[in-house]
Amino acid sequence: MTILLTTGYHDASAWRAALADALPGREVAVYGVDRYDPAAIRYACTWHPPKGMLKVLPNLEVIFNLGAGVDGVLSDPELPDVPIVRLVDDDLTERMGEWVTLQVLNHHRGTLTYLARQKRREWKEDDQPAARDVSVGLMGYGTLAAHAARILKAIGYRVHGWSRSDKPADVPLFAGEAGLGPFLAATDVLVALLPLTADTRGILNARLFASMRREGIGPVLINAGRGGLQNERDILEALRSGALRGASLDVFNTEPLPPDASLWAAPNLIITPHCAAVSEPGAVSRYVAGQIARHERGDPVENVVDRSRGY
Amino acid sequence: MTILLTTGYHDASAWRAALADALPGREVAVYGVDRYDPAAIRYACTWHPPKGMLKVLPNLEVIFNLGAGVDGVLSDPELPDVPIVRLVDDDLTERMGEWVTLQVLNHHRGTLTYLARQKRREWKEDDQPAARDVSVGLMGYGTLAAHAARILKAIGYRVHGWSRSDKPADVPLFAGEAGLGPFLAATDVLVALLPLTADTRGILNARLFASMRREGIGPVLINAGRGGLQNERDILEALRSGALRGASLDVFNTEPLPPDASLWAAPNLIITPHCAAVSEPGAVSRYVAGQIARHERGDPVENVVDRSRGY
Repeated sequence: MTILLTTGYHDASAWRAALADALPGREVAVYGVDRYDPAAIRYACTWHPPKGMLKVLPNLEVIFNLGAGVDGVLSDPELPDVPIVRLVDDDLTERMGEWVTLQVLNHHRGTLTYLARQKRREWKEDDQPAARDVSVGLMGYGTLAAHAARILKAIGYRVHGWSRSDKPADVPLFAGEAGLGPFLAATDVLVALLPLTADTRGILNARLFASMRREGIGPVLINAGRGGLQNERDILEALRSGALRGASLDVFNTEPLPPDASLWAAPNLIITPHCAAVSEPGAVSRYVAGQIARHERGDPVENVVDRSRGY
Repeated sequence: MTILLTTGYHDASAWRAALADALPGREVAVYGVDRYDPAAIRYACTWHPPKGMLKVLPNLEVIFNLGAGVDGVLSDPELPDVPIVRLVDDDLTERMGEWVTLQVLNHHRGTLTYLARQKRREWKEDDQPAARDVSVGLMGYGTLAAHAARILKAIGYRVHGWSRSDKPADVPLFAGEAGLGPFLAATDVLVALLPLTADTRGILNARLFASMRREGIGPVLINAGRGGLQNERDILEALRSGALRGASLDVFNTEPLPPDASLWAAPNLIITPHCAAVSEPGAVSRYVAGQIARHERGDPVENVVDRSRGY
């Protein structure tokens, strides 16, 4: 029995080794590299699988998504009707917490300003609000956001969240269409951790920025969700006009971000190359092995994607 | 009855207003600006007071230090024998927590590297350890360090401390001369929050850097304590040779750091202009007013400096 792997990376050997390590006795076939019998594939571990790759596997039982966002796999119009398991991984959650915290602090504490002054050998400090006077709004309030919220609260920030539907949370939570306006009006620093769905595509646009609080250090946009959430022309204009006071983007409409993209040189923007929370092959493979063990002893796999919601 | 104020700032008006606000009915005289009767001064609020300023006040009862470090006031050889109250202020503690967390994350998550790539329009990511595989050592384990430790642990870092003497702490604590070697050998990122005393002057030097762990992302030096703790020639050489993989300095031997100082352009160094944790006049004045109220109802003032220890 074979596990089919597609990673989106040029070189899948680290993933292949990690999966083989976590699942001794199973064969691992890398899509586009190894030959395999389609009928032997029971599990597919995929990141942005090529369209049509999955529909030709007659005995496929579970699809494991190798990252946090499932829009890539869901965009396949001929997806087989088997459970798709979302990655819920402490390692990925913690790395995202690091990145989000760093970016909030970078904008709050003026990292780009002080680095520019350092280059000019200029000794000059700015007043700044205390964390308790800065409100951070987490948009998309799942596992990743809840972890980031715990860190941000420990620093002293006022933290609240927005979610599609109401649910218990350890921060004040705004919900649904009706909650979005009040959520934005209370937000200095917006952290987007939303899944990419028909409802959220392009949601980070000029109209949304104009609805944010304009006091203190904001509005600041931080997107660690999906590139498709953002209108990049609007972000560029907002940074140039001051409608946004700063932004940090880890994700883009086109990745890698093309060398001629104007965003590279936008003012008060920090760009990272989709590295906020990289799935670590060892940790992910252990998670996959744990779910396969559940499945094979007859328990339902966990963290199954709801296809109608899109996440 | 008059309160004498010296702030080290060119313009003390914000401090004067904040003190007057917190202590209604008291006169506030600014040293070097206002005329005052030395015999009328019962309290002095000072930051690096000019030598000899305090000894001519016959009725002085308490000296309040307006920042976290007391080496400035203690350097006056004719200091009157009255209690010196250290500033212990939640606002200052929280701002220091922000800065320390930001600098640890900057080095762990490669901020300078990614900003340089952004300038070159280069999309390239580096592997990096998870926070749980990075150890942060807090040197000088008082109120400031304990708060920073709570945040760093929430992010996932391994955190430990070093203190002159053993005491209860919520992280593993190394103590005294004997504990320093093992502490450094376990430390990737060293955060100095020490007071400046005869024992600690110049302690951040080449020998200390050579004693730190050389695995993962370290050794990295972060100094938010006092400039006098550091040997700046050693830091410059260590950054150039790679003996230090990175550093963040908020304090310097000479402040402002002179424009011709080589440190400005040292590799992998982040410089901020002694703004890690600025005393906020309102918060500090309320603290001073609270201590004066204690003193005048006959209770001992709190957080009194031990002159023999130097902090």
